[in-house]
Amino acid sequence: MFSFMPKEKIFFDLFEQSAKNVHEGAIALLDLLTDYTDIQNKTKKIKNIEHAGDEITARIFDILAKTFITPLDREDIRDVASALDDIIDLIDTAVNRMSVYRIKESSEDAKALAQVLVKSTSLLIEAVSYLRNMKETQRIITLCQEIHMQENEGDRIHQHALEHLFDNGTDAVNIIKWKDIYFVLETATDRCEDAANVLHTIVVKNA
Amino acid sequence: MFSFMPKEKIFFDLFEQSAKNVHEGAIALLDLLTDYTDIQNKTKKIKNIEHAGDEITARIFDILAKTFITPLDREDIRDVASALDDIIDLIDTAVNRMSVYRIKESSEDAKALAQVLVKSTSLLIEAVSYLRNMKETQRIITLCQEIHMQENEGDRIHQHALEHLFDNGTDAVNIIKWKDIYFVLETATDRCEDAANVLHTIVVKNA
Amino acid sequence: MFSFMPKEKIFFDLFEQSAKNVHEGAIALLDLLTDYTDIQNKTKKIKNIEHAGDEITARIFDILAKTFITPLDREDIRDVASALDDIIDLIDTAVNRMSVYRIKESSEDAKALAQVLVKSTSLLIEAVSYLRNMKETQRIITLCQEIHMQENEGDRIHQHALEHLFDNGTDAVNIIKWKDIYFVLETATDRCEDAANVLHTIVVKNA
Repeated sequence: MFSFMPKEKIFFDLFEQSAKNVHEGAIALLDLLTDYTDIQNKTKKIKNIEHAGDEITARIFDILAKTFITPLDREDIRDVASALDDIIDLIDTAVNRMSVYRIKESSEDAKALAQVLVKSTSLLIEAVSYLRNMKETQRIITLCQEIHMQENEGDRIHQHALEHLFDNGTDAVNIIKWKDIYFVLETATDRCEDAANVLHTIVVKNA
Repeated sequence: MFSFMPKEKIFFDLFEQSAKNVHEGAIALLDLLTDYTDIQNKTKKIKNIEHAGDEITARIFDILAKTFITPLDREDIRDVASALDDIIDLIDTAVNRMSVYRIKESSEDAKALAQVLVKSTSLLIEAVSYLRNMKETQRIITLCQEIHMQENEGDRIHQHALEHLFDNGTDAVNIIKWKDIYFVLETATDRCEDAANVLHTIVVKNA
Repeated sequence: MFSFMPKEKIFFDLFEQSAKNVHEGAIALLDLLTDYTDIQNKTKKIKNIEHAGDEITARIFDILAKTFITPLDREDIRDVASALDDIIDLIDTAVNRMSVYRIKESSEDAKALAQVLVKSTSLLIEAVSYLRNMKETQRIITLCQEIHMQENEGDRIHQHALEHLFDNGTDAVNIIKWKDIYFVLETATDRCEDAANVLHTIVVKNA
């Protein structure tokens, strides 16, 4: 049945949970790429974080479907939840590909992309925490700008990684593998920016 | 001009037509991959099914644009139609790539992915058929869960296919070709799940 | 604060600016691919056009967020703006990849895809210009059909490009590079069609 009471709190709680979960995934990714040992356990840890993210996202969508009056536009709630979920999905995909491709060692560029993800997701946690009362709208906008700058940094690293890969690589199979891994990691930084763009839109609407 | 009469029936009719058409495409794909002969005719058959899908989808969008009061949320109608259309587009794309890449024989993993598509689209036909009167909401949810399980199975096969390809392949060009084909087929199973997710949302909203 | 006055004019002005900017980008791409010299300057020119596009798109989204009553459905405004922005982003991405991959010479198929983009974006400028007063709805529909035909032509060229690449290429690294560039260019023609589809929907709704 439809609920006619605004369930404001639950959405903000779940957004915060989701952002923290995504950030945890980014930290676990950076840890794997920095110290590329005990790979099976570290990969499993990230898979578990991804599953936890799925559950948070499913709860948001379920509650949204049952809630008649929402504290933010339905589409914005959906877009924030989906963008956060996409980030952790892509982190998990990247790690999974490293396993499938039997990657034997990490790379500096992959590590640099993971650092961008750690930073961006940390900024997302803070930005999402201010949605609740909309008292720090200027701060949210500043955080979104910083996430945008991180995404630019991600692009720069991705470009460098490809140049490095193709300039030094003569092994086509190795190029195929790393090109794919870098693409997935860079797409994860894009999704951080997508999340920031929705937050920005929400703030402008409610200013 | 806008129509003020709910055109319920036509949307459900077209959803069913579209799901059945997509299922026919999945069966034709499995047939091609199981018996990889008479390729030109089988490829053409799938292209024709894809064209039929385009026409059904265009009709849904046209009627939606002209209809003022809709039996389901406009966005949900659009999303169901698009997800179904994406499935058959991707099936056609996969077959087209096999032709462009001059693929000489099928693969067990490609066949297994086609089987997932046959199963998922069969579940979609049943789920879509219950939208009309919303009397079998629990059954729709069960079907969506089964489609979700099929998508997991698709992921598993995709992962196995990549491992097999990279572990055994020394021919980089062959890897490029099959990696692409598997990716397109696995994305088609993702779209089945996307369609199921929209159906699930519709059911929860109208429960 | 919300504005309660329809800001019709500004959206149509910005759509026209965006479409003209995208067309300029397509022309600069065709120029680069036709006369593959002075590459650094030509690449920079396209990057500047992409930045100009970002600013137009950001303005549309900002004004949309602040506008209460819009001359077209919010979602349609968002979709037109995004599709146009995606086209110029993809043109910039293609050129950037050519630089990253140290591409030494252009290709006939890349040039043909750029010609499709020049034609499609020219049709988009005209179609967008008629949105303002909705007096030429039949003409908009005809233009959308022509853009659809251009997208089919893009598919045809893409397919030919891949066949040519794989039939003649034994160098896997070269195949990886060009497959990627063709994919990005073909996706740009898809986005032209996406823009046309939104225009078509707008016309049908307002007919």
